[in-house]
Amino acid sequence: MHGGNIYDEKIAYDFSVNVNPLGVLPEVRQAMEEALQDVSCYPQVESKNLRRELAQTLGVREDCLLLGNGASELFAAVFHALHPKKILLPVPGFSGYTWAARMTETEICRYPMKPEKGFTLDEEILDDLTPEIEMLVLANPNNPTGKYIDAGLLVQILNRCEELGIYVLLDECFMELSDAPKEHSLKKEYGKWKHLLIAGAFTKSFAIPGVRLGYLLGGDAEWIKKISYQLPEWNVSLIAQRAGSACIKKWDSLTQVRAYIKSERRKISIGLKQLEIEVWDSDANFLLIRTDLPLYEKLLERGILIRDCSDYPGLKRGYYRIAVKKTEENRMLLQEIACIIEEKEKNDE
Amino acid sequence: MHGGNIYDEKIAYDFSVNVNPLGVLPEVRQAMEEALQDVSCYPQVESKNLRRELAQTLGVREDCLLLGNGASELFAAVFHALHPKKILLPVPGFSGYTWAARMTETEICRYPMKPEKGFTLDEEILDDLTPEIEMLVLANPNNPTGKYIDAGLLVQILNRCEELGIYVLLDECFMELSDAPKEHSLKKEYGKWKHLLIAGAFTKSFAIPGVRLGYLLGGDAEWIKKISYQLPEWNVSLIAQRAGSACIKKWDSLTQVRAYIKSERRKISIGLKQLEIEVWDSDANFLLIRTDLPLYEKLLERGILIRDCSDYPGLKRGYYRIAVKKTEENRMLLQEIACIIEEKEKNDE
Repeated sequence: MHGGNIYDEKIAYDFSVNVNPLGVLPEVRQAMEEALQDVSCYPQVESKNLRRELAQTLGVREDCLLLGNGASELFAAVFHALHPKKILLPVPGFSGYTWAARMTETEICRYPMKPEKGFTLDEEILDDLTPEIEMLVLANPNNPTGKYIDAGLLVQILNRCEELGIYVLLDECFMELSDAPKEHSLKKEYGKWKHLLIAGAFTKSFAIPGVRLGYLLGGDAEWIKKISYQLPEWNVSLIAQRAGSACIKKWDSLTQVRAYIKSERRKISIGLKQLEIEVWDSDANFLLIRTDLPLYEKLLERGILIRDCSDYPGLKRGYYRIAVKKTEENRMLLQEIACIIEEKEKNDE
Repeated sequence: MHGGNIYDEKIAYDFSVNVNPLGVLPEVRQAMEEALQDVSCYPQVESKNLRRELAQTLGVREDCLLLGNGASELFAAVFHALHPKKILLPVPGFSGYTWAARMTETEICRYPMKPEKGFTLDEEILDDLTPEIEMLVLANPNNPTGKYIDAGLLVQILNRCEELGIYVLLDECFMELSDAPKEHSLKKEYGKWKHLLIAGAFTKSFAIPGVRLGYLLGGDAEWIKKISYQLPEWNVSLIAQRAGSACIKKWDSLTQVRAYIKSERRKISIGLKQLEIEVWDSDANFLLIRTDLPLYEKLLERGILIRDCSDYPGLKRGYYRIAVKKTEENRMLLQEIACIIEEKEKNDE
């Protein structure tokens, strides 16, 4: 199960998908419209032009970078290239890593993060990094909590993994929509750890999940080459390549987006707490919440989709994830939840 | 190396890429333009709507069908799912199969097709179908010749493979642009052989390689499910899904396209033979030719790209592949080649 299942249900508002709430930039839309004139041409192999532009923007080496048909394609390529027998996976976390692990029949060891610690990592994970673990998969910020990994702990983890020869797949797909990417992203330090692979996504940052565009950055150009051999030729569509180039030109627009998200998240969080719903701290564009109300079903009746998190390993019934959207949509969501509570109280009387 | 490398060279006419010469249909273009309004949504998982429509059009079961980000993604998924140790590959043939085979470190046994037999398969291949071969990869019509496999021989091959438990990956990506798909495609008989997997592509038939859309049809729903587990989630973009639906509504337009190609191919073939260039018989939208002229370089100087086939296993310097394009473009190509010959004769004097 994933967020964004707007195909089986009639949905007016989708809070289950965590993309840039301000939507597609006009410049990006225009680039895609222009690209449609050229769809009779094959896309550039290895997305060379876009890769060069992205390498410049991130300040990294071109041969340490790969473009993919969404980050999910790159996760699959990492598993196919490294073929880890056993991985360590903190839970709750994104189900996409499990999907990729099945491709290579990889055994998954789950590291449980506790609700009382806000579902964040603690130093105990260092003890689970044993030599038989071949890869560790981390998301920073994590999904569904939106919380950063403690920066000091992350460095400790990476150092330990480097010592033991454990690959680290660090998913930073939500980093650009989180409060402080400069302090928390490791993209600038990608060369420090040979075993570090960092994933990113245009999909979320620029609100274009329908197009599919992700990237992978690695400290070791040799491994990046080996991973690239697991990708089909022409894996990134011509439209995605052109959209990516347009996004890069507007990279600075994300500063304003982050400020918007932070302010809106605060308002939703306060509003939900006033409604006596449990809310976890988040650094990103979504919130993990808990309530005994049948919130998913009741909101769906009103044409509103949220992410029911009961299928996340480590979570159970009552946990939901809500995306931070535009001011008026967020206000509407709070009002609808208030109505649901009011109705329930009336029925209970 | 592939056709369509328009990114490193300045090209006015691209005869290296074999897609529908009449270009993108207005209805398909419009569907893609409309899809751009929805790129903030994730594409439908498993392309369910498109799969249902395509299953109806092909007259096949939905659960025997998979959609992919181009046929190349599906080749990769087949190799990852079946993980064949050794495959048999007739040459000359498309390099994409070798690309996919590298992903699984599969050993490739090459079956040489002879120029004097028009680079077609003969019965001798049956002797090469030994039990240690786990998969046979065939293209019908073949690339770069455009020739059909003899229909009787193909059935013999499939029966032999079924007996021996050898999977057959049959690439029909050019079938819809060839003269007689009704007589030669095995899509209608997909259920007859459990080991048969048939690949097809919207890319070529509807001139949308920039979008990426292919499909795979298999006689065994269980294997199709296993192959689907090797695909990333959301592998087909929202734009490709919508384009595919629009193509299906215009499937009948291909009848006229085939007649156009056949007539144009005949004219090019006659014209080239008059210029004393060796031309192989073709049933599809491209022609394999041979000449001692440095045709690739000379045409490139004039802004025209053709496919130099010297890197195809089984071919050597002097072989080229030319796509059948529109009447005026084909006429222009013949004129330019005539000029190159004339210049050479002047220089030789």
